[in-house]
Amino acid sequence: MLSIGVDIGGTKIAAGVVDDSGEIIAATTRSTPATDTEQIEAGVADAVAELRADHQVVGVGVGAAGFVSSDRRTVKFAANLAWREHPLADELEQLTGLPVVVENDANAAGWAEYRFGAATAARHMLMVTVGTGLGGAIVLDGQLIRGSGGFAGEVAHMTAVPDGQWCGCGRRGCLEQYTAGTALVRTAKRRASAGDALMGPLLQAAGGARKEIDGPLITRLAQQGDPGACALIAELGSWLGVGVASISSLLDPDMIVVGGGVAAAGDLLLDPARTAYADHLTARTHRDLAPFVLAGMGNRAGIVGAADLAR
Amino acid sequence: MLSIGVDIGGTKIAAGVVDDSGEIIAATTRSTPATDTEQIEAGVADAVAELRADHQVVGVGVGAAGFVSSDRRTVKFAANLAWREHPLADELEQLTGLPVVVENDANAAGWAEYRFGAATAARHMLMVTVGTGLGGAIVLDGQLIRGSGGFAGEVAHMTAVPDGQWCGCGRRGCLEQYTAGTALVRTAKRRASAGDALMGPLLQAAGGARKEIDGPLITRLAQQGDPGACALIAELGSWLGVGVASISSLLDPDMIVVGGGVAAAGDLLLDPARTAYADHLTARTHRDLAPFVLAGMGNRAGIVGAADLAR
Amino acid sequence: MLSIGVDIGGTKIAAGVVDDSGEIIAATTRSTPATDTEQIEAGVADAVAELRADHQVVGVGVGAAGFVSSDRRTVKFAANLAWREHPLADELEQLTGLPVVVENDANAAGWAEYRFGAATAARHMLMVTVGTGLGGAIVLDGQLIRGSGGFAGEVAHMTAVPDGQWCGCGRRGCLEQYTAGTALVRTAKRRASAGDALMGPLLQAAGGARKEIDGPLITRLAQQGDPGACALIAELGSWLGVGVASISSLLDPDMIVVGGGVAAAGDLLLDPARTAYADHLTARTHRDLAPFVLAGMGNRAGIVGAADLAR
Amino acid sequence: MLSIGVDIGGTKIAAGVVDDSGEIIAATTRSTPATDTEQIEAGVADAVAELRADHQVVGVGVGAAGFVSSDRRTVKFAANLAWREHPLADELEQLTGLPVVVENDANAAGWAEYRFGAATAARHMLMVTVGTGLGGAIVLDGQLIRGSGGFAGEVAHMTAVPDGQWCGCGRRGCLEQYTAGTALVRTAKRRASAGDALMGPLLQAAGGARKEIDGPLITRLAQQGDPGACALIAELGSWLGVGVASISSLLDPDMIVVGGGVAAAGDLLLDPARTAYADHLTARTHRDLAPFVLAGMGNRAGIVGAADLAR
Repeated sequence: MLSIGVDIGGTKIAAGVVDDSGEIIAATTRSTPATDTEQIEAGVADAVAELRADHQVVGVGVGAAGFVSSDRRTVKFAANLAWREHPLADELEQLTGLPVVVENDANAAGWAEYRFGAATAARHMLMVTVGTGLGGAIVLDGQLIRGSGGFAGEVAHMTAVPDGQWCGCGRRGCLEQYTAGTALVRTAKRRASAGDALMGPLLQAAGGARKEIDGPLITRLAQQGDPGACALIAELGSWLGVGVASISSLLDPDMIVVGGGVAAAGDLLLDPARTAYADHLTARTHRDLAPFVLAGMGNRAGIVGAADLAR
Repeated sequence: MLSIGVDIGGTKIAAGVVDDSGEIIAATTRSTPATDTEQIEAGVADAVAELRADHQVVGVGVGAAGFVSSDRRTVKFAANLAWREHPLADELEQLTGLPVVVENDANAAGWAEYRFGAATAARHMLMVTVGTGLGGAIVLDGQLIRGSGGFAGEVAHMTAVPDGQWCGCGRRGCLEQYTAGTALVRTAKRRASAGDALMGPLLQAAGGARKEIDGPLITRLAQQGDPGACALIAELGSWLGVGVASISSLLDPDMIVVGGGVAAAGDLLLDPARTAYADHLTARTHRDLAPFVLAGMGNRAGIVGAADLAR
Repeated sequence: MLSIGVDIGGTKIAAGVVDDSGEIIAATTRSTPATDTEQIEAGVADAVAELRADHQVVGVGVGAAGFVSSDRRTVKFAANLAWREHPLADELEQLTGLPVVVENDANAAGWAEYRFGAATAARHMLMVTVGTGLGGAIVLDGQLIRGSGGFAGEVAHMTAVPDGQWCGCGRRGCLEQYTAGTALVRTAKRRASAGDALMGPLLQAAGGARKEIDGPLITRLAQQGDPGACALIAELGSWLGVGVASISSLLDPDMIVVGGGVAAAGDLLLDPARTAYADHLTARTHRDLAPFVLAGMGNRAGIVGAADLAR
Repeated sequence: MLSIGVDIGGTKIAAGVVDDSGEIIAATTRSTPATDTEQIEAGVADAVAELRADHQVVGVGVGAAGFVSSDRRTVKFAANLAWREHPLADELEQLTGLPVVVENDANAAGWAEYRFGAATAARHMLMVTVGTGLGGAIVLDGQLIRGSGGFAGEVAHMTAVPDGQWCGCGRRGCLEQYTAGTALVRTAKRRASAGDALMGPLLQAAGGARKEIDGPLITRLAQQGDPGACALIAELGSWLGVGVASISSLLDPDMIVVGGGVAAAGDLLLDPARTAYADHLTARTHRDLAPFVLAGMGNRAGIVGAADLAR
């Protein structure tokens, strides 16, 4: 049974026909005109039309960054698009004539990992996406957890530090301010600005310009063994582990999947996360530690997860 | 359809026959010899035998304080009893000849509230029990969340304050150290010891002896309007709200049930909790606030929930 | 005995002839061309020349924002000017032919309060200046505390919150990030951005534009009794009190002088500071609480203090 | 010129005749009957009588644990003795016929280090005594800082962690709860109790009994290279460095002297302290780092400092 998955990103729409085993057997893209929601819908419809011309599909799953209603039909709020309480599923069903479900993009990606990727052996999975920001997805006993209003899985805004760093969400000390790409880069710049000698090689690699320091540069230097870059990634990982330990007190997952751009640092990120998780997990002597594994689906996860959820 | 619920507490075994509507139609108790697990099992079997003499029951649900395996058959660890990886369900099935399931007592109580008590209108419920310690139970879409090893719902040991107060679990800053009865009493004693004038009436009510200050005394003075006692309860409530906000980022429940001995303070506890929850909840302008309600089943919850889970 | 005090600010040079009782008996100003240190020195020399034409003076004291060497001759670093290890005293002595001492501007102002202002009754004074940033000055037993390198009195950069808000100084959780004008305005904007209803009147007073919220507006609304503005000032005051309590553990001053723009809020700021100070001060039952008083010299303090230090 | 120094400890009175160069040229001791202040005074008088029989002395300096009035005549409060607002100097002058000054014991020891020990090269010294508790002494420009009520130098009760570990003083998060011997041992026990494998060798060295873990054992294992013990000492050192950095923002000392029992760990303690100090010190690129050195006078410091202060 085939279905179509669509991943609406900030700069492009990626769509694919996905089979029962999670393989993408055909794919296409459209560019995203971020400010015009009608054009986005037209682009989705157009991509779907192209794909179904050659394949018999039972429905369409759409992943989008934002809060999606728990009935999977309405985008309540999208960070980067103009949608507010937007009936996306209805409109796309009209345009395509196919059943459509909408899902938060992190949830779609998490579902793909659970069904076909790194977490097929898991029963209760926590996925954490450490990209520019911090995303999360929770699957318990085969059920994707969406919450009453579609807001579940927002690990980013759990309070990590009372009275800590202000967050863009208007509150202080959110976990995202300690373990995400922007936190990584900010810490690097601040420490460089304070004359921290450990940041020297990183600053040099940025041509001496603090503002040129970015996440990929830090990751690259860390992979080359630079102590400063490694310390930055390790600090991020430690906070990740602390956060996952709190979540595990609540949900007791048996597998932790880590995705997102910063996950390219691999064990440089995961090892400190594992250590902090073990150090902060209650009842450690009575329970098994959950393994931390890297996400395995890459950027296909959004399409595959959305498609699978549409079946 | 009737079933028997059993609540194994620190000083007694309470059992009852429960009907489909959550009513206890017959009840009995046995005293608990806490150190002898065989006698506890014999007591449970004896109580079950008494109850089924007059009622046709389909099974037995047993609630116990401790970690229970996710298949609901084994007590992995009990704080106050000598059970370690103890096959409680097997042994009670042998003794009673009835199907038996075991459940963590906070989970059983939470389930009772969800099915018959304060949260019958909820789809996704978080219950927090603020007693001597802090307990939790999570029901999402009709599913009680137990986690991979039966450790889910341990809100007590989420990290509230990095490097904060040491917890009996061997880690620092656990939420339980800020919002439970022991935290309430400790704060009162410490502030009294530091000469805090606000603690004066409380100290006086304790006959001038700091060690006589306990939770019920603080609650009683708060209900009489004593500013010091009210401030203590309010501080507890604020931490509760902060914790619930973090949990809501993760699970997005639509109802928060608060039980336990400290909940006797009512809105003196709940109002500060509501305020802190609203202040710390991300995306507040896009979502509904979950109501905080008091648990409604009292100490019947353990029996009723366990019985219902056995059906 | 007369001396001249000079206050080098960001936009102007203010100078005055000061008598033994701390009165300014003649005054003049020059505009400050912030980027040209030669012109600043010429401006100071010119103002001094004008003033001494009519008065017999024994020396010149110069207050400047920045780190000043403990021998009071060199500006090591100035935040807003181009001075780096600049021999300001030497150069001004050459230009004026008078003995010159240089002092940090917060120290000069603190000295004025100690000698002629709010703290004449103090033996050991802590002055905290809550302006855009946070400044401090310490006088113990008649000795202005400068430290080994002239860095003493930097209350701004004591750590208030481990892993807290990043500070411009490249470190996290500095007290200035919690109790200064920029912190006040940032908190207001963040809370307004999060949809905090308490910020409604403030936002309205700012014409609905978050970026128009500033310190004087918050202070004005607080003085009119707006609960949101009062809460913002009170939170600032609480952190101030916590910081002063830590400083008092170390130095045990007998008077706390609070100056700077935010001090215009008066007891709306000071009362929460007093409460938090009392709550966080160790050995409270064995000691007297130090009074918190408002600075009394206004913007004359810089000139008067610098002049007096030159005698 | 000779004077007598007396160190009143919990179990004995140690006294000595001290010369201008800080040498003890004669010494004696008496046992301390801790609960009888008259006997303590008689013991001090007796020791003084013995010593002056052979030496011409100009006065007596007495060091005592507790709060001493800033005029150095009255013990306001002693932790381990029954003195409350006790006119110790007056009474000892009557008993001995010699001029007597009283000083806080940590201050006396700090003064000895400044005058004759590790800090003779310092102009502005901070001494931190990391024993069972945390003590401090401050000497700025040759002046011992006592504060308005004799409470200065209480580094122990600066707030290190808002809402952190409760302190015996009735407040939360005092620095002493993070960097003193009791904190060291508590952390070890808690981590061992949580099943932290890193604590294994330490627990083994304690014969498997958590309650047998004490400071000297941890120090010994750290000196033998045990990673767990080293981590415990290092964590203590890091907090020490953070605290010293805050103090340095305020006082800018040019030397940090570290004494007390835990200082026996040497660089295992000092190196992490130095690192954390450098990382948390503001304006690091504009200033010299103060050296951290070990105290050099050992337990003679109390006698020598008290004697010298009596001249």
